[in-house]
Amino acid sequence: MDENAPIKVYMTKKLIAVKPDDTIQEACRVMVEFDIGSLVVVDNGNVVGFFTKSDIIRRVIVPGLAYNTPVAEIMSKELITVNANVPLKKVLEIMAAKRIKHMLIEEEGKVVGIFTLSDLLEASRRKLETAISAE
Amino acid sequence: MDENAPIKVYMTKKLIAVKPDDTIQEACRVMVEFDIGSLVVVDNGNVVGFFTKSDIIRRVIVPGLAYNTPVAEIMSKELITVNANVPLKKVLEIMAAKRIKHMLIEEEGKVVGIFTLSDLLEASRRKLETAISAE
Repeated sequence: MDENAPIKVYMTKKLIAVKPDDTIQEACRVMVEFDIGSLVVVDNGNVVGFFTKSDIIRRVIVPGLAYNTPVAEIMSKELITVNANVPLKKVLEIMAAKRIKHMLIEEEGKVVGIFTLSDLLEASRRKLETAISAE
Repeated sequence: MDENAPIKVYMTKKLIAVKPDDTIQEACRVMVEFDIGSLVVVDNGNVVGFFTKSDIIRRVIVPGLAYNTPVAEIMSKELITVNANVPLKKVLEIMAAKRIKHMLIEEEGKVVGIFTLSDLLEASRRKLETAISAE
């Protein structure tokens, strides 16, 4: 784990998306199938929203919304992104300050990946393995 | 972040608990209030279960259970724990292998804390800050 390396080294490039009129229950099935904690919402090829498991707990179960509510009603429309060249340490600072576990990565204004705490776990482990094999 | 330090150095000691007959909706309110991703279930002073936001997505929303279902029906009864003296690097290995983001920590057979990927983020950041201040 090189804290000065750009976040694009550690991000996941494969973004899993749903459509704005997909239901919350359908979106949850996708999360379970791909074992992921967040989804982007894409309309006509553009990323129009984003939501996490935490958003579902907070915005669906707590207020008691129906499972067939479209994801457009609960997604975050203001996307928090960082540029793909921002160093890992800066991204970790922002995530800790904002208390978020998923960060969208953009390049030239386009969302190109996501960095999550699971990616941090992978990066930490790879570094440890390298250190151990060098002993 | 010292990968050889025992996990008890990095774990969170404050465990937030609900009761087996609390509803899923009540449990979600507690998660939101404390900004946490998992809860232990305590009955007569004993930890009898555990569940995460992922379990709620998978076991409540996907099958379409009612929000007032008691948490006893969806909690994990077989607790995955590690001893408080196990080194951080070993805990990270187990979490990556099992694809889990929360690990209960036990000492003398009693649950004494929890280690999550948010704790890993904190540990990574503290290490980076130390490295930067030493420059």
